[in-house]
Amino acid sequence: MTTEATTAAVSAQDIADGVRAHELDREHVFHSWQAQGPFTPMTILKAEGSYVWDGEGNKLLDLSSQLVNTNIGHQHPKVVAAIQEQAGKLCTIAPQHVNDARSEAARLIAELTPGDLNHVFFTNGGADAVEHAIRMARLHTGKHKVLAAYRSYHGGTQLAVNVTGDPRRFANDHSDSGVVHFMPAYGYRSYFASTTEAEETERALRHLEDMIVLEGASNIGALILESIPGTAGIYMPPAGYMAGVRELTRKYGIVFIADEVMAGFGRSGKWFSINHWDITPDLITFAKGVNSGYVPLGGVAISDAIFETFRDRAYPGGLTYSGHPLACAAAVATIEAMKEEGMVENSARLGEDIIGPALRAMAAKHPSVGDVRGAGCFWAVELVKNRETREPLAPYGGSSPEMNQVVGALKAEGILPFANFNRIHVVPALNISDEDLLTGLAALDKALDVADGFVEA
Amino acid sequence: MTTEATTAAVSAQDIADGVRAHELDREHVFHSWQAQGPFTPMTILKAEGSYVWDGEGNKLLDLSSQLVNTNIGHQHPKVVAAIQEQAGKLCTIAPQHVNDARSEAARLIAELTPGDLNHVFFTNGGADAVEHAIRMARLHTGKHKVLAAYRSYHGGTQLAVNVTGDPRRFANDHSDSGVVHFMPAYGYRSYFASTTEAEETERALRHLEDMIVLEGASNIGALILESIPGTAGIYMPPAGYMAGVRELTRKYGIVFIADEVMAGFGRSGKWFSINHWDITPDLITFAKGVNSGYVPLGGVAISDAIFETFRDRAYPGGLTYSGHPLACAAAVATIEAMKEEGMVENSARLGEDIIGPALRAMAAKHPSVGDVRGAGCFWAVELVKNRETREPLAPYGGSSPEMNQVVGALKAEGILPFANFNRIHVVPALNISDEDLLTGLAALDKALDVADGFVEA
Repeated sequence: MTTEATTAAVSAQDIADGVRAHELDREHVFHSWQAQGPFTPMTILKAEGSYVWDGEGNKLLDLSSQLVNTNIGHQHPKVVAAIQEQAGKLCTIAPQHVNDARSEAARLIAELTPGDLNHVFFTNGGADAVEHAIRMARLHTGKHKVLAAYRSYHGGTQLAVNVTGDPRRFANDHSDSGVVHFMPAYGYRSYFASTTEAEETERALRHLEDMIVLEGASNIGALILESIPGTAGIYMPPAGYMAGVRELTRKYGIVFIADEVMAGFGRSGKWFSINHWDITPDLITFAKGVNSGYVPLGGVAISDAIFETFRDRAYPGGLTYSGHPLACAAAVATIEAMKEEGMVENSARLGEDIIGPALRAMAAKHPSVGDVRGAGCFWAVELVKNRETREPLAPYGGSSPEMNQVVGALKAEGILPFANFNRIHVVPALNISDEDLLTGLAALDKALDVADGFVEA
Repeated sequence: MTTEATTAAVSAQDIADGVRAHELDREHVFHSWQAQGPFTPMTILKAEGSYVWDGEGNKLLDLSSQLVNTNIGHQHPKVVAAIQEQAGKLCTIAPQHVNDARSEAARLIAELTPGDLNHVFFTNGGADAVEHAIRMARLHTGKHKVLAAYRSYHGGTQLAVNVTGDPRRFANDHSDSGVVHFMPAYGYRSYFASTTEAEETERALRHLEDMIVLEGASNIGALILESIPGTAGIYMPPAGYMAGVRELTRKYGIVFIADEVMAGFGRSGKWFSINHWDITPDLITFAKGVNSGYVPLGGVAISDAIFETFRDRAYPGGLTYSGHPLACAAAVATIEAMKEEGMVENSARLGEDIIGPALRAMAAKHPSVGDVRGAGCFWAVELVKNRETREPLAPYGGSSPEMNQVVGALKAEGILPFANFNRIHVVPALNISDEDLLTGLAALDKALDVADGFVEA
């Protein structure tokens, strides 16, 4: 272990409290996406900036941003202060009233979103943002079917997990959600036998149009797509693809929902990832980065045209905590801190100057690296047993002893990593110091030696 | 207006800020359950205890508890302090880690819930609690259909609004959710031509069993029922009904989900409303009162048997903010404050000694009162044009000029009321002072004079 015991940061009492918290957790806390029995969660005693401290007091460098949500790092003092101030003023108020924190958060978000996305419906998180965006699209168009991509993630509630295109959908799929999945543009493992980026774009768009025609454009109300797919692999849409999707959805009268729950709020070096392609979707779903998850918050940014549909017709949806004052105050402070400290620009710089070059150097050096891709603080490293066949180091939807060893090597280096299937994601806070980032990348470089050991001769 | 301008509490600057907040709201905030155009929301500048201050600085007595969630009133100092302290310590952490606030909240909730509901899955609110409870039930039983009551409310996301049995479901209902609705036990407007409580219980249970048999017990995984239906009318289940439902669900291998999102955490004078009947459901959904909505939080309390299903099999559901530290710290502080200050006992006392007697006196006096019912701080007054025919003062699913006048009269008396269709709900904070409560009830008494004017000769 190269991790350091930081007794200054974490006391013996903290550690004892953590032991008790761990016992109670195993007795009473039911965890997400887990078999509850064999699960051995890590205790986190403290977090600050890009660091967390585990149950033994070890200081770990957080390259996961938790679930890719703490874009401003842990415990940003300005946002903490804003939460404390708002808590002292007004914690909660019902959604039918006017609240200043809610109004200001909506104004700031409307200002940041592209085009005429001037209205904001607040939810508690990303999943319900997706649920409500789809509802708006269905009612706006009067059409029920939803197109969604395979290799995507859109949330955990029933409809959100049904538009999801990863294995987390399987156990919840009763073929009754009105969702149809299409093949995404994913150059490294092309579903269209493409060999160039231009070919991938052209074929993926042709496939999408074929799907629309064959499913019936007259039945399709919405198309939902992550602007850059996140947990599913941070596979950057090839040039021209997103503009093509915008064109097709317009042509066929389909509401285009850009899911920016993970990709938004500076993650990829722009305020929204859709900004990489200068297009305006009809709806944007957001959560996570909007306030770094300091208080649960999500929402839907809504175009003027869709707003018009609900000007005189009641929107049949809502929730008790819509526009929660504490959550909105945290969003206002987060956005202001991100602006003041140039975090989005910093995210772009880190991607261009440090992460991209470092990962490409690792790809050149380590035969286990099949592909690296990303932008800003949003990068994936895809590990393979064989560069020619591109056989992944863990199967789709699963883990493997090999991947577990690579992840273990990262943890041994004092890194809290984000891993999915055969991929390691490099998704630090947007304000991580260059020095910390370089430390993290050096640890990854070292862990890839372990991965190289599994490459077929 | 008998409301008082409280310049001490609200400054001219606050009022000016409120005007600006209102403008921004109309420009950028998309509201729940509304046509956005004609909607004229009330600004709330400040809230404390059982009072809120509107945009003009008028002090209003909050008999709504907002959306029946601020069970401890507004800005409870102990809970505000706990939120501020936790914000300074750790705002957020991913759900796969152990966190002390989450562990302690789970322990406290498991302790309060009846029987062997020893495990807690945290969500962001009530709707996703319902979504996950149904998922657990379906996977536990391997059966897909869900039975739910008409005249119920279970949340705003797709599956939650589909189990809902009120008109908010209509625009979202594609008959594809696997939900079948049954007639509830609702004595005042019996669906079974009952004339006594015993008859209503017997006939409603017979109807439920008929539904189970005719829909096919082999297909029904879950039955969801509010322990006391909330927004749908606080109609108390007749004696023996809930025990009968428990028996039927056990007999037919159906998971019984008691929805306590509104009815739980002292609202009806017991920690959970199911406690009125000494039975243990398989799952309890909660939100609102768990921390009075100070930070968004909901969850599912899970029986040992259902936990066992997911001991070695992954639970296919989750969310980024599950067990959010800030929300859980607020829950811990809320539960502790409720215990220390005897709020649940106080809720029972207020219902027995003050609200019940007062409402029954009003029923004796005002011909517009068709029915009053409730427990604790959870009461409904059903207004009618005619006591014989029981014709409601507003139709099912709608408002009416008559009801608007009654609600207007309450507001003119300085009351922030909760109204639904032809009903006024008396749902104050559990720690409202006797004096304030009596003031509110006197205002209601006066407003009922207006209602009496609409009673047919």
